[in-house]
Amino acid sequence: MAAHPVSPLAPSKLPVLPPVAGARLATAHSGMRYQGRDDLVMMEFAPGTRVAGLFTRSSMPGAPVDWCRKILSGGNARALVVNAGIANVFTGKAGQQSVKTTADGAAKTLGCRASEVYLASTGVIGQILPAEKIVAQMPKLKAGLDGGNWLAAAKAIMTTDTFPKLATVTCEIDGRKVTINGIAKGSGMIAPDMATMLAFLVTDAKLAAETLQALLKAAANQSFNCLTVDGDTSTSDTVLLFATGAAGNAAHSKPSDKRLADFRRALVQVMSELAQLIARDGEGAQKLVTIEVTGAKNDGSARIIARAIANSPLVKTAIAGGDANWGRIVMAVGKSAEPADRDKLVIKIGDKPVTARGMVRPDHDEAYATRHFKGRDVRISVDVGIGKGTAKVWTCDLTHGYIDINADYRS
Amino acid sequence: MAAHPVSPLAPSKLPVLPPVAGARLATAHSGMRYQGRDDLVMMEFAPGTRVAGLFTRSSMPGAPVDWCRKILSGGNARALVVNAGIANVFTGKAGQQSVKTTADGAAKTLGCRASEVYLASTGVIGQILPAEKIVAQMPKLKAGLDGGNWLAAAKAIMTTDTFPKLATVTCEIDGRKVTINGIAKGSGMIAPDMATMLAFLVTDAKLAAETLQALLKAAANQSFNCLTVDGDTSTSDTVLLFATGAAGNAAHSKPSDKRLADFRRALVQVMSELAQLIARDGEGAQKLVTIEVTGAKNDGSARIIARAIANSPLVKTAIAGGDANWGRIVMAVGKSAEPADRDKLVIKIGDKPVTARGMVRPDHDEAYATRHFKGRDVRISVDVGIGKGTAKVWTCDLTHGYIDINADYRS
Repeated sequence: MAAHPVSPLAPSKLPVLPPVAGARLATAHSGMRYQGRDDLVMMEFAPGTRVAGLFTRSSMPGAPVDWCRKILSGGNARALVVNAGIANVFTGKAGQQSVKTTADGAAKTLGCRASEVYLASTGVIGQILPAEKIVAQMPKLKAGLDGGNWLAAAKAIMTTDTFPKLATVTCEIDGRKVTINGIAKGSGMIAPDMATMLAFLVTDAKLAAETLQALLKAAANQSFNCLTVDGDTSTSDTVLLFATGAAGNAAHSKPSDKRLADFRRALVQVMSELAQLIARDGEGAQKLVTIEVTGAKNDGSARIIARAIANSPLVKTAIAGGDANWGRIVMAVGKSAEPADRDKLVIKIGDKPVTARGMVRPDHDEAYATRHFKGRDVRISVDVGIGKGTAKVWTCDLTHGYIDINADYRS
Repeated sequence: MAAHPVSPLAPSKLPVLPPVAGARLATAHSGMRYQGRDDLVMMEFAPGTRVAGLFTRSSMPGAPVDWCRKILSGGNARALVVNAGIANVFTGKAGQQSVKTTADGAAKTLGCRASEVYLASTGVIGQILPAEKIVAQMPKLKAGLDGGNWLAAAKAIMTTDTFPKLATVTCEIDGRKVTINGIAKGSGMIAPDMATMLAFLVTDAKLAAETLQALLKAAANQSFNCLTVDGDTSTSDTVLLFATGAAGNAAHSKPSDKRLADFRRALVQVMSELAQLIARDGEGAQKLVTIEVTGAKNDGSARIIARAIANSPLVKTAIAGGDANWGRIVMAVGKSAEPADRDKLVIKIGDKPVTARGMVRPDHDEAYATRHFKGRDVRISVDVGIGKGTAKVWTCDLTHGYIDINADYRS
């Protein structure tokens, strides 16, 4: 498997994540696919840890997704086991057996129930996951558990990712300091053989599982759900949020409680950072693209329009080429089939408006727009002139690199 | 504007289209964008010619689409004027004026009403169409009108097309021989700056406008609506069917009349041929891909699934690379969000089944599948195990050529 060059959009410096009380991590090498690097992560959580989860909407979910969905109703978590290399998707009964073997192995190793062991796998679809290779590493994983292994964990879950993705934030609940750490991999919807969007968040906040679930869902709508690379939804997308409770705050149960306002803000922040890191590492990405839609019928309509622009191969190739071809943005709005007023449509590239009254503005600054499209950070905003709906989406450009990575990856 | 090499999927021989009684054609050079080639087509139809039309569903249609929609209610046609190079889309009031000037010019030249002059433009979005350059050529166009100019017309409407697209078929209505000729351009949904799906069909059948419209719509569902290249819907897609009535058949008015069965078949045939030619000339296409879905909840659901596969960048790049990566087909079915049974899903590549019982078959012939994917003509079929809905979609692969053509076309 050829390594691909690190994305030019990679952050110049990786954050150092502090330990989160009640959580320990370890990594190991299974040998199932990758050579010379770790490909397994184990996290162990203190008793009483609560968990929330969001999963792919694909009708072809992987066996680990089925498993997590099933045990999530319990709301308790003691461990997470992740492997990179084989996704354990479309593997029938054998896939279910791999999941059971892995969960049983972790439960025995850590002294908890299998139904408290969360699992995620990322990699090739359709291959059987050799769970025994994971279980064989569990004694070593247990021995290596430590609060400080976040960078190693972020690296061990990488597949086609060209850099590890980490974020951390602190906030307060009732005056107590709370930390939220997160790691993520893969390029969201890009979903090639080897990629899956996985994100794992760990906080020491004390929160009931139902509250946690509501907060996670709301934050995902402002972060991971604003992300698209190529519109291809993975069969394995998984976001898990673990709360160890070690911060000892009072466990407010109403998600909208104003005493949780800072936690809500912090959760959106750390998840948004991870989402943007994923867009920055979209396969072949040379540019981070932010698309904002306003004036739509409602927020849902705005998101559909924003995604139509973000997923348009013609818009994405124009951005790749630094050609500020705004006509393609008109096309993408039109094809979304959402309400939009052609004669009120205002497209902005960077900070300057391009259109008015159903045509290009007489003062359109083509040179400025071209310069903006040639940069690393492209911003497009569109007001569709109908209502008050808004949405924001992050994506990247469509380049030769995407074709290189995906045209003959497996063979 | 760099010329791109002729698609390797181009037919080895172009059909010679016979004249259609009641229709004459001419081409000319406007000089508005292309050098050294004709870029204008005029067709003149005998009095009494009826017309049917289908147009883009984009909410940002071009001025010529607005015009054709408006006059179509009359059902009568005496002329068609098409230009290549500038699409007259998103041009506000100036665009409406260009349309009026062109229609008035043709009406005056040919001695008919402006409301009988159909218009189509293809090319760059957002530029004003210099109608005076079209009108200036009208005397020359009129002088050149001839029943035999089909190849010249098919060439004059090309933009990024690498070969002209023509088809002809004969059929019978009540024992009378009827001809249907068609020309088309552009790569359907691919919709780059310079492309638009335009198709013009001319028959000597005698049919009422309402009947014609119903027949055209039904045939489009089995031909052009089975076509996708990159999922980007053009602002200018136009299909027009003109019937001169010169064949002198009895004008059966019920579209489902069994005496029209052969005409219906012939119409689907000529339109399917054109649709496949468009897929064969998709930008950067190296392979024609046919996707058949069966076992869906209904035909509409089957089409959504087939399009999800056909538009998936990961499936298209795998085909480009000759990597029979069937896991990506699973992914695409899953992301369609249409009902599908993971454990009954049967994917076939070429003639051989790949999956059964929610996983790969033990007898899966990887070497065969790879050979099939490396060929020019790739067939994928998927039974989703739910019901009786079926659909077929034609597309092409996603290659470096697509990026080359679209990344810096305008600049």
